[in-house]
Amino acid sequence: MRAVFLEGPRTLVERETDVPPVGAEDVLIKVHSMGICGSDIEYYMHNKCGAFVPRNPLVLGHELSGEVVETGASVTTISPGTRVSIDPSIPCRICRYCRCGRHNLCENLRFIGTAATYPHISGGLGEFVAIPATNCQIIPDDVSFSDATCLEPLSVAVHAALRPARIAGEKVLVTGGGTIGQFVALVCRAFGASVVAVSDIQAFRRNFAVEQGADFGVNPTDAQDLARVQDTTGGFDLIFEASGAPAAIKQNLELVNKGGTIVQIGTANGPVELPANLIMSKELSVLGSFRYGDIYPISMGLLASKRVNVTPLVSSTFSLTEAAKAFELAAERGDAIKIQVEISA
Amino acid sequence: MRAVFLEGPRTLVERETDVPPVGAEDVLIKVHSMGICGSDIEYYMHNKCGAFVPRNPLVLGHELSGEVVETGASVTTISPGTRVSIDPSIPCRICRYCRCGRHNLCENLRFIGTAATYPHISGGLGEFVAIPATNCQIIPDDVSFSDATCLEPLSVAVHAALRPARIAGEKVLVTGGGTIGQFVALVCRAFGASVVAVSDIQAFRRNFAVEQGADFGVNPTDAQDLARVQDTTGGFDLIFEASGAPAAIKQNLELVNKGGTIVQIGTANGPVELPANLIMSKELSVLGSFRYGDIYPISMGLLASKRVNVTPLVSSTFSLTEAAKAFELAAERGDAIKIQVEISA
Amino acid sequence: MRAVFLEGPRTLVERETDVPPVGAEDVLIKVHSMGICGSDIEYYMHNKCGAFVPRNPLVLGHELSGEVVETGASVTTISPGTRVSIDPSIPCRICRYCRCGRHNLCENLRFIGTAATYPHISGGLGEFVAIPATNCQIIPDDVSFSDATCLEPLSVAVHAALRPARIAGEKVLVTGGGTIGQFVALVCRAFGASVVAVSDIQAFRRNFAVEQGADFGVNPTDAQDLARVQDTTGGFDLIFEASGAPAAIKQNLELVNKGGTIVQIGTANGPVELPANLIMSKELSVLGSFRYGDIYPISMGLLASKRVNVTPLVSSTFSLTEAAKAFELAAERGDAIKIQVEISA
Amino acid sequence: MRAVFLEGPRTLVERETDVPPVGAEDVLIKVHSMGICGSDIEYYMHNKCGAFVPRNPLVLGHELSGEVVETGASVTTISPGTRVSIDPSIPCRICRYCRCGRHNLCENLRFIGTAATYPHISGGLGEFVAIPATNCQIIPDDVSFSDATCLEPLSVAVHAALRPARIAGEKVLVTGGGTIGQFVALVCRAFGASVVAVSDIQAFRRNFAVEQGADFGVNPTDAQDLARVQDTTGGFDLIFEASGAPAAIKQNLELVNKGGTIVQIGTANGPVELPANLIMSKELSVLGSFRYGDIYPISMGLLASKRVNVTPLVSSTFSLTEAAKAFELAAERGDAIKIQVEISA
Repeated sequence: MRAVFLEGPRTLVERETDVPPVGAEDVLIKVHSMGICGSDIEYYMHNKCGAFVPRNPLVLGHELSGEVVETGASVTTISPGTRVSIDPSIPCRICRYCRCGRHNLCENLRFIGTAATYPHISGGLGEFVAIPATNCQIIPDDVSFSDATCLEPLSVAVHAALRPARIAGEKVLVTGGGTIGQFVALVCRAFGASVVAVSDIQAFRRNFAVEQGADFGVNPTDAQDLARVQDTTGGFDLIFEASGAPAAIKQNLELVNKGGTIVQIGTANGPVELPANLIMSKELSVLGSFRYGDIYPISMGLLASKRVNVTPLVSSTFSLTEAAKAFELAAERGDAIKIQVEISA
Repeated sequence: MRAVFLEGPRTLVERETDVPPVGAEDVLIKVHSMGICGSDIEYYMHNKCGAFVPRNPLVLGHELSGEVVETGASVTTISPGTRVSIDPSIPCRICRYCRCGRHNLCENLRFIGTAATYPHISGGLGEFVAIPATNCQIIPDDVSFSDATCLEPLSVAVHAALRPARIAGEKVLVTGGGTIGQFVALVCRAFGASVVAVSDIQAFRRNFAVEQGADFGVNPTDAQDLARVQDTTGGFDLIFEASGAPAAIKQNLELVNKGGTIVQIGTANGPVELPANLIMSKELSVLGSFRYGDIYPISMGLLASKRVNVTPLVSSTFSLTEAAKAFELAAERGDAIKIQVEISA
Repeated sequence: MRAVFLEGPRTLVERETDVPPVGAEDVLIKVHSMGICGSDIEYYMHNKCGAFVPRNPLVLGHELSGEVVETGASVTTISPGTRVSIDPSIPCRICRYCRCGRHNLCENLRFIGTAATYPHISGGLGEFVAIPATNCQIIPDDVSFSDATCLEPLSVAVHAALRPARIAGEKVLVTGGGTIGQFVALVCRAFGASVVAVSDIQAFRRNFAVEQGADFGVNPTDAQDLARVQDTTGGFDLIFEASGAPAAIKQNLELVNKGGTIVQIGTANGPVELPANLIMSKELSVLGSFRYGDIYPISMGLLASKRVNVTPLVSSTFSLTEAAKAFELAAERGDAIKIQVEISA
Repeated sequence: MRAVFLEGPRTLVERETDVPPVGAEDVLIKVHSMGICGSDIEYYMHNKCGAFVPRNPLVLGHELSGEVVETGASVTTISPGTRVSIDPSIPCRICRYCRCGRHNLCENLRFIGTAATYPHISGGLGEFVAIPATNCQIIPDDVSFSDATCLEPLSVAVHAALRPARIAGEKVLVTGGGTIGQFVALVCRAFGASVVAVSDIQAFRRNFAVEQGADFGVNPTDAQDLARVQDTTGGFDLIFEASGAPAAIKQNLELVNKGGTIVQIGTANGPVELPANLIMSKELSVLGSFRYGDIYPISMGLLASKRVNVTPLVSSTFSLTEAAKAFELAAERGDAIKIQVEISA
């Protein structure tokens, strides 16, 4: 099979490799497409992501969908020919976190297409992937492969949206209009938020969010713009922080209404100086949200029922041979929301 | 002022009466319209509702909106000329239930337009109503009086929808497609349920629900129809029981998925024989939902943001002089969802 | 090894049998003692329990503790010589219920010492049991085997106590002072209920509960006694129903305070006629509680920290050879709370 | 009547003053005793507390109990001669926070014995206090006035303990063994925490906590001591931060188990540099806790049922004439946990 290996910073090499072996509980997937995530870009640029350094050439890609072409001996729940979207996280299912339904915190988690665990498991930037059958979410007929490939980032957003006690009827601000922020805004809308505002320092992202249905785009560095939206809405009881920017994390504590909730999804690099006392004196709830638990069925329900339309978020699509070009464009972090690589149409 | 008094079964008499006095904390409302509720029909047909018998001629009507025309001496939050929708429940605000935010369970609740408390407080079937300023929800410019008059039954539905831990992404069945069931279906849709089905023995109500956006209409007495919907959806994890019918209450315990939730909104008359053991062996949650707490702001947010469209639910509108005709039509419980009386346009 | 087989109604036969094979993920337990549960008594009396009929002679016993004497090839977390209490439920860990942390509702659950699944898995009424290593809860040094054998019914009680949103500071009534009711009363005390009352028609059970720390014993058929306790306490906001008696299930709906919660743990045989409307009009929460999820660590923490003292609940202990005598005594349902069989000291 | 006025930094002056007028909804309380709070000490030392500067001589004291000696015209729920503990917070009961049961966040809150609102309302450091009848919690016969005076700080602790989803069975660390930390440790014990550890840099406070029932005292600056306790307990899933120390706030984010909860009660002065990313990557919940909502009934239930014993926390008691001496001792922040002034025995 053909696959693209990361062999160093900005070095993607396409070559032949073996089709992965299929265990008794596994299925073999013919990959249709993979989406490029922020962590993929980190690996691409620096041949590492945070503390994770590949020990051997790595096939990236953990947002993917495709068709089942082979099933392991023990698999009874799925047959060849089935279109599926892949949950890339492989939890142990027996640690204390798995047992209580929080498999995103699994103490023995493996994850495809990253160097987070060793031996690394090849990801979606190749023709075939082997994965446990339980990681497959069946794609309904009227959902496209491209949309289904968005199920991973959509699930990050859905998991975050389910962290607060309630989203229905809430006035919501999303800080950061990057990929995840855009998905979060769509999900808040679908889950009944009465107001959805998106703040970003880039006008393109603010405008894009409003085009997709947000009520307000806000420039967080423009005090007047911010005050206008707060006055109109009565302020925000619920903020999703999807930028990771220290200024946003700090501003949110001041901005959020008394008794409000902040969900932290973005990655903050390094320590952040915070007016921590506000957490107490305003009786806030600051909730971290990390990847997702067993969310794929809910996310697919949102796609199938057209509650969420992710199609406009896929900015452009490249072939496997053009993978390097796709990663370069993604690394620019310009006006693209989500870039996909189509491995086999 | 003109008002219509209930003076006996099926006996509505329009006559002159005094404009009610306006207390220091009150406002005087020029009523625009009132909606006829199931309990209003009970009073109309039998001159009583359950245990509540009017001790004097009663002005019915607790779903209403209008314009503030006068404000009491202590009122600072609202001015004459403001368009408002009225919360008809006047809680004591100091009993143990009020203190913890459950004013629908208030131990000293007063309620306008009913005989539940004495002295009775006149309701919306007259030109003016006096009510505490805190019972007024301001109507945004782009919401009509008629829609705002629906805020009371909409709030019943919103309160019910907020009883379960989560509605987003859930597969929902609403049993009973009467007025409240139709409102609940709209709210479930707006709050992100992935499937909404409505069951009713009347085809008109099933079809109406589907026209308003429900995914399925189901005939609960047709086993094949029921099985088809269950197979398609994978069953229901969340059921709202809005019919009060013993057969529905019983069937729901059998129908709901293991670990599921049933919210009881409908009024069951008399004892019901139930397979109670299923509550334990399927580990269900059966949650009562009674009127609403402090829900009006959320409900109005749904109207203002067009998340919920109640306009099609108002089947017909009559003048004050035609009140008796309106009640007769409502009492037929035919194809009408909600009938309103317009007091002053 | 020696084991006692159920070979027909009231027919327990002790004989030699093979030590069970130990799978790669399993451990072999030398059983110290087993506790007789209500379902064990059902099997003993009728050679069936509800719909479950043994297809071959069955070794009963799902409340047990013992010592690990052998470990399967893949087991790394536990060593021979370790004292353990056994969780008898073996969930699939991949169905939708397992994935969200509700393994008691597992769609493929196996359970030792019962005929609920086939092939039946031998239980604790024999010298050795083989069980997955993940089913073992290590017993701290200062907890006795006998107390650790109570971990299963204690976990039923803890699971039930965690179903309502809050137990701390609540006024609690437990209806039914049988084994589970007594455990529930202890747990409510340990979890900070401000009042714990236990109702039962048997004076012995009421008195026993009070001796173990309950504030009140109540005779539910004595209206004056009930009224006295309600007046003293201000009524009950939280009721645990542990009797399964239709009269109790019905009475609880009337008894519980407005806005209150009822947790159903007892098994109701047959349909029950209920004033179902109270669920709506009092806005109650009726929550089923079925066995337990991943509760053993919490339960063992209660034993280890002496928050709960289960020693007085073990009424008498018999040897394996006396098993039939132990079951006969248990079947009398007299003054015994929990009867244990000690297999090897 | 006699009262002690704060007339400048470290300047308490006892003199005659008028008995406060009793409004229709009020009761007049003959104060038995008042407890000195941290904020009282701030006022005493600097004649201000944070931003709050008294505009006229102030009678401090918001922890108090006493006897009702007179009732306003509209008061029906309480009679002269009743022993009561006072909730010092007077909420408006109609703002959005009051309506949903969070009166601690009331937008119009008044508070006795502080300069937070103007006109200031005299507190407990005088013979009589006037307060709405609804602020009185009746003291059961077997609870002493001195214990009942502790109801205010106990309620701060109970409110904090009810912020996380669950405390029963949790492994809890309390950082900061000052007054509030000690109360929190007692409450965690009463609410069923399986482990309670208290960390403080002062050995006296660690030892005191252990004497009152905590399992461990920990020195947070001693890495070995900390590691020992973490190894023994398996780490902490729930931390109550009651010190306000930046070092503790920072350390807690690192210390708490993945998926854990931190409740912030202590006051942090100034910005704190935090490893904020841990909130996301460990999926933590950081919950502020501010004063208390409608908690007095629960707190009194804990005293009445002897679940919590606050008597040992009252380190010493002074007369009204010795008030300055009491404040000087409290200001030393030495080995005293709680100092009370007895106004009339």
